[in-house]
Amino acid sequence: MARIITLLTDFGVQSTYPAQMKGVILERCPEAVIVDMSHGVPSHNVHTAAFMLASAAPAFPEGTVHVVVVDPQVGSDRRVLAVEAEGHFYVAPDNGVLTLVARGRSLRGKGKPPAQMVSVENRRFSRTEVSSTFQGRDVFAPVAAAMASGVALKEFGSPVDSIVPFDLPLPEEKGDTILGQVLYVDPFGNLVTNVAAEMLAGLRLGEAGAEHGAVQVTVSGAVIRGLCRAYCDVPAGSLLAYIGSAGLLEVAVNRQSAAARLGADIGTPLRVTRSKP
Amino acid sequence: MARIITLLTDFGVQSTYPAQMKGVILERCPEAVIVDMSHGVPSHNVHTAAFMLASAAPAFPEGTVHVVVVDPQVGSDRRVLAVEAEGHFYVAPDNGVLTLVARGRSLRGKGKPPAQMVSVENRRFSRTEVSSTFQGRDVFAPVAAAMASGVALKEFGSPVDSIVPFDLPLPEEKGDTILGQVLYVDPFGNLVTNVAAEMLAGLRLGEAGAEHGAVQVTVSGAVIRGLCRAYCDVPAGSLLAYIGSAGLLEVAVNRQSAAARLGADIGTPLRVTRSKP
Amino acid sequence: MARIITLLTDFGVQSTYPAQMKGVILERCPEAVIVDMSHGVPSHNVHTAAFMLASAAPAFPEGTVHVVVVDPQVGSDRRVLAVEAEGHFYVAPDNGVLTLVARGRSLRGKGKPPAQMVSVENRRFSRTEVSSTFQGRDVFAPVAAAMASGVALKEFGSPVDSIVPFDLPLPEEKGDTILGQVLYVDPFGNLVTNVAAEMLAGLRLGEAGAEHGAVQVTVSGAVIRGLCRAYCDVPAGSLLAYIGSAGLLEVAVNRQSAAARLGADIGTPLRVTRSKP
Repeated sequence: MARIITLLTDFGVQSTYPAQMKGVILERCPEAVIVDMSHGVPSHNVHTAAFMLASAAPAFPEGTVHVVVVDPQVGSDRRVLAVEAEGHFYVAPDNGVLTLVARGRSLRGKGKPPAQMVSVENRRFSRTEVSSTFQGRDVFAPVAAAMASGVALKEFGSPVDSIVPFDLPLPEEKGDTILGQVLYVDPFGNLVTNVAAEMLAGLRLGEAGAEHGAVQVTVSGAVIRGLCRAYCDVPAGSLLAYIGSAGLLEVAVNRQSAAARLGADIGTPLRVTRSKP
Repeated sequence: MARIITLLTDFGVQSTYPAQMKGVILERCPEAVIVDMSHGVPSHNVHTAAFMLASAAPAFPEGTVHVVVVDPQVGSDRRVLAVEAEGHFYVAPDNGVLTLVARGRSLRGKGKPPAQMVSVENRRFSRTEVSSTFQGRDVFAPVAAAMASGVALKEFGSPVDSIVPFDLPLPEEKGDTILGQVLYVDPFGNLVTNVAAEMLAGLRLGEAGAEHGAVQVTVSGAVIRGLCRAYCDVPAGSLLAYIGSAGLLEVAVNRQSAAARLGADIGTPLRVTRSKP
Repeated sequence: MARIITLLTDFGVQSTYPAQMKGVILERCPEAVIVDMSHGVPSHNVHTAAFMLASAAPAFPEGTVHVVVVDPQVGSDRRVLAVEAEGHFYVAPDNGVLTLVARGRSLRGKGKPPAQMVSVENRRFSRTEVSSTFQGRDVFAPVAAAMASGVALKEFGSPVDSIVPFDLPLPEEKGDTILGQVLYVDPFGNLVTNVAAEMLAGLRLGEAGAEHGAVQVTVSGAVIRGLCRAYCDVPAGSLLAYIGSAGLLEVAVNRQSAAARLGADIGTPLRVTRSKP
């Protein structure tokens, strides 16, 4: 039975809002193991939350309940979704943050369609007094506690077929060229792109040397030849491209920030050219 | 029996100080479930800690032990308080952070007087070596672990009748006008005031439209007419007033920071006028 | 049996990287109690990580597993160490962060040599797919989960005698003078030095008054006479020196930041003069 509950919000770590959600969860499911996925989503940024969820959820075991509260429409009539997909459970506003899950996709292209998807309507699982500005505490948290306690999804509300979509940008292939963009900048300033390792599958990834000349990445005017395995394959201060821990192409500067060096940010375009050695 | 222990400090999330408290707690009470209430209290700011505690503690179940370490007098002869009130337990320095609890009040005016209040004197519950600068680790943490393990309050020390008071500012009513102030600025820049929903009880809160004209909030030169239910009741970038998740009047800007827009901060005065539609 | 696992990284609290490690740990050791030691180590700063680990680990009970992921050589052939010392367990890159542990020293000089020290080579404990940039998730986390589950160190790999050393700077004694330096600046701006209380043992520490004239600390041009017990022994805004919670000499400004006041940082030298009253 599910016992792990993750929390992904834009509340920041200064406030007590995440703690208030935990209090509500622990009252209803004392054996829950709560993990902060992150409270550092930029305010109201559904796209970044979608990326963070999709890149981190696969590290958790089946049965985990993932709660997302990045919810600028809180208090309106936007729906709250409860979803089961690939053995994981999700509670989130119907604002696009679950688009990949609902489409049965992952950041790498693979994935299975959701087993169940319902709209949370049954007020029995909400707190008695529901704030119109903090449903993370008063609706999402008690629903997550119920899911973690084994309540079946159909108890929460009626099935939904379609959701409000908000797709992450997909890379385009044009002949031997892939046009992608930066999806996320991590705390080291590494640029995580939407180009999956699988798109580069024709190229064997392995020792850095073997790749030189096989692929060329152009971003913000800089040209990077070949893929490396790790940061320290290049001298400190040098640019490199590599397949990162989410299975996506990343661009970094060894021991420095690629975002700062290149003036790059979420949405910055990049071009990947496949070329024979 | 109490098992949840919350930690509210001004240690920040960079240091290992919160972790050191957790190590001490888990050594003495391995089954404790520790929740970070927040480590983002501004340094030495007893008022803000008092607000954060009072607004967040009600989300936790009875039996929870709340530890507060915002303690500029650490190492002096200031007392350490252990309190039971409304089924919750508290360990905190006697510097005013528990004033509401000791007075049997909540942020919304309701509340019951504490069942027990003692001064922690029994050194049996402290660590062998007590640092004069980190009693959070050496005194508060082991006392909290003992409370969570079911040790009766009277074991910690002798009863106290009065505490060092440090009251949060109360709103003043002058005829049809309430003079309040900002108690807290949350990470979204929302302004949380000391005006409780109950003070506005003559006004029915419900759909935004019904309230327009019923109440008028003036803060930093801006005038807001009527109460909304949620941020998205107004266009992005517009000011709104509403009852927030702590049951207090709040002022926000939809998708932006009201604090930045209005140049408002903790202590900024506001005026609420009740007027007939 | 070990059940507590601490995580010390330079990942920051914004990303999902710490959460991904927790997902992997909980899948393999569901009963683990995971504590964030800190994710605020400055990027790639092995020295600061070593200080933070050495100052915080003693607050945890025996059997705790400490994981350190400050790992600029990730993906290279640098070794991963698994160590048992004084009843604690450690998993960390072989980059010097465990130098004190391997030498059987503590920040205060005391300590015992490690009971066991092995190089993690057995891939059976790694995840199936090992990212070359996030071994914290794919190697360190599963190894820590196995250690917490009671797997013997020898199962992970072969014994090692020596490690890559990266010593924290030691203070020098010259007659009645100690030349030390700042090891760490805490979030309050307090300066934690490498001068242990034991080095000042000739001076009795006690009430502030008794110490005046007994010791003199010179740092960044400021001269502090005598040791205090606590911040509030001096007026707000005044400098003081005292023995901090790690058993080391610290310099602070009551209610303000000594780092800002003195322009001091990690590495700033200080001079301690012992003088008769």
